[in-house]
Amino acid sequence: MKAKITITPKKAVLDPQGKAVLNALEHLGYDGVSDVRVGKYLEMDVPSDSPEFRERLNEACHRFLSNPVIEDFQVEFE
Amino acid sequence: MKAKITITPKKAVLDPQGKAVLNALEHLGYDGVSDVRVGKYLEMDVPSDSPEFRERLNEACHRFLSNPVIEDFQVEFE
Repeated sequence: MKAKITITPKKAVLDPQGKAVLNALEHLGYDGVSDVRVGKYLEMDVPSDSPEFRERLNEACHRFLSNPVIEDFQVEFE
Repeated sequence: MKAKITITPKKAVLDPQGKAVLNALEHLGYDGVSDVRVGKYLEMDVPSDSPEFRERLNEACHRFLSNPVIEDFQVEFE
């Protein structure tokens, strides 16, 4: 069983890396692209997707995988 | 319309950042977690999901958003 975690900067937070990617895309002629956000992606094999484990993994995301002041995270099991 | 791009290190490539996260999880008592891979995540507003645009975005991923020698990427439209 796999857990997939995406961590993105919060909407209200400036994202200079996203801005840089957007500029590069525009220079290469990708018109109409906007609002690029760059975040992190983690993938791991996990032993279960029980509610307890989900809760613990959320806690890990909150405590040290993301910075909850400036980042949002989302966990999916597959 | 949103495009979501995940970029992960290839299976055969060492991923020291993933190893560090795995070590941290183990120290915190997350038993049974394994094979952690850390990659990048990009989210952007795009004008269409036509086959032409998909093709062009794939090309952008291949040319400069990822390093195809050591990374795989996946594009989803939503």
